[in-house]
Amino acid sequence: MPTTTSAPVKPELLQLLYSPIAAELAEVERRLKGELRSEYPFVDELVRYGCLLGGKRLRPALLLLTAKAVGSRVTHEHLTLATVVEMIHTATLVHDDVLDEAQIRRHLATVNARWDNEASVLLGDFLFTHAFYLASTLDSVLGCRLIGRATNIVCEGELRQKGSRGNFALTETEYLEIIEAKTAELTAVSCRLGALFAGASDELAEQLDGFGRDLGIAFQIADDLLDVQGEEQSTGKSLGTDLEKQKPTLPIIRALELATPADRAAILEVVSGDERQPRRLAPYLDRYDALDYAKSRGQAYAHRARQRLELLSPSPARDVLATMTEFVMSRNT
Amino acid sequence: MPTTTSAPVKPELLQLLYSPIAAELAEVERRLKGELRSEYPFVDELVRYGCLLGGKRLRPALLLLTAKAVGSRVTHEHLTLATVVEMIHTATLVHDDVLDEAQIRRHLATVNARWDNEASVLLGDFLFTHAFYLASTLDSVLGCRLIGRATNIVCEGELRQKGSRGNFALTETEYLEIIEAKTAELTAVSCRLGALFAGASDELAEQLDGFGRDLGIAFQIADDLLDVQGEEQSTGKSLGTDLEKQKPTLPIIRALELATPADRAAILEVVSGDERQPRRLAPYLDRYDALDYAKSRGQAYAHRARQRLELLSPSPARDVLATMTEFVMSRNT
Repeated sequence: MPTTTSAPVKPELLQLLYSPIAAELAEVERRLKGELRSEYPFVDELVRYGCLLGGKRLRPALLLLTAKAVGSRVTHEHLTLATVVEMIHTATLVHDDVLDEAQIRRHLATVNARWDNEASVLLGDFLFTHAFYLASTLDSVLGCRLIGRATNIVCEGELRQKGSRGNFALTETEYLEIIEAKTAELTAVSCRLGALFAGASDELAEQLDGFGRDLGIAFQIADDLLDVQGEEQSTGKSLGTDLEKQKPTLPIIRALELATPADRAAILEVVSGDERQPRRLAPYLDRYDALDYAKSRGQAYAHRARQRLELLSPSPARDVLATMTEFVMSRNT
Repeated sequence: MPTTTSAPVKPELLQLLYSPIAAELAEVERRLKGELRSEYPFVDELVRYGCLLGGKRLRPALLLLTAKAVGSRVTHEHLTLATVVEMIHTATLVHDDVLDEAQIRRHLATVNARWDNEASVLLGDFLFTHAFYLASTLDSVLGCRLIGRATNIVCEGELRQKGSRGNFALTETEYLEIIEAKTAELTAVSCRLGALFAGASDELAEQLDGFGRDLGIAFQIADDLLDVQGEEQSTGKSLGTDLEKQKPTLPIIRALELATPADRAAILEVVSGDERQPRRLAPYLDRYDALDYAKSRGQAYAHRARQRLELLSPSPARDVLATMTEFVMSRNT
């Protein structure tokens, strides 16, 4: 599998982007490190490694930025919940790497590559359960309820994705439903929690949930584009795994929809055959402008996300959320 | 791997044992079936199968019996929490089967045998997250907190067990700590929840937590005995997997502790070598009375569990809890 040398979003850029919540994010980082420990050496080594696997801290950043954009200050509950959503995200990554048999994630060996699948399963479970416990330390049951529900939807989405493996009759609508569940539900709930715990009205919380949802969908479309392009890009993760695992993603769905019967048969041969390589798919994706189409769909979601911010008063935090909607699709360039 | 034909505890016997809570357990069963559904056919098939994998419904039974023994009636909260603990137990079973590469569980093909490891990982995650969501539907955060904490301890115990794979220098104390975490924490919290949501004092809840803990430890010792005996017994699950996976269990730890240097070397050759079969271990376990020793340790925990029930007023539910402490070690006969 291809290995890579630098992150798609430069750390300096992230630092700039996150400057309105720099202190709070640093506190989340401290909490993550403080929570993910064990008095037993083997367990300690493994759970600390889990901490390193997170990357952009997108979900806690969304939660904190939303909190600040709505209520101007970040509370103790926000910091706890931001730690929780990052732990849950990391748990899903660790389990995804078992499923994908990925070797590299964020320039680090995945847990299953460095230890084994068993370690990945158990570490993921540890992270999930620790996150739920942490959410329950708040006085109100609301955090547990929203996080429990969202996480269950994420799992259902992952199961649907598994059920659709090799099913290249999957429609664009079904694809969008699946990525909404498996990816956007967690970014949506991050924004909703940030808003609600800052005293947002139900209407505003709903809009900001929608912001996180649209941004999450755009983000996943961008991620799927990266995987299918499979160029020597600097993504810090194994590429071409969707194709290898026969996951129907938007560019393939689009090309199949437009293709002549002969091209359709040829595409199906590539995606279902034994040599499922991005370079064999590329001519067909080009012929039907499938990458551009997927990119434009992602941009439409990013645009809608941006519009939803109009309910917020101007603030540096709102500006960062707006900037994110611009950056999300440029992951592919 | 050996397959088997009937359960270690006969269904009729269980039915008799559970008669004081028959209606409530039937309601838990209905709730499990009602919760574990999906509108998507592949997901639905998989999560329904998860429902079948539970067996004796020991944990919900403990929760309901404790509730009845303390407060004489079972509330809506108890029914929800009983459903939650069974879902969590099933999640750990499904993930255990990935780890053990087991083929058979309760006379059914395991999820990883019928589908694959990926399906097991995702189904386990679905069950965990659904359980946490369900716990959060109660008004109080207490259920989430106790369940989150206990489940995290279970995961830490599983990780410690993994870390001790092939470490036959493990002491009896360490072994007991590990099984307390990975097995007894969930039976303990089931009893604590039953008691607390029935209005028990902290002292009584503590004793009943201790009851579930001691019973759980005895139960796991019995389970480990079954595995190492590896006879053609009717356990409904794959046997000899602990040995295969180089898990140090109590009979082996005991034999190693007492063995002459020559026997010690011979035992280590069996448990660490390529042919790790129960029949090769049997002569050494016999020579050092290691099975009887393990059984007597289990019986001591069962006895202490029984004593803890003395704080309860007499009731049919208390009688059943007492009977459980007698049955727990007879799983091996």
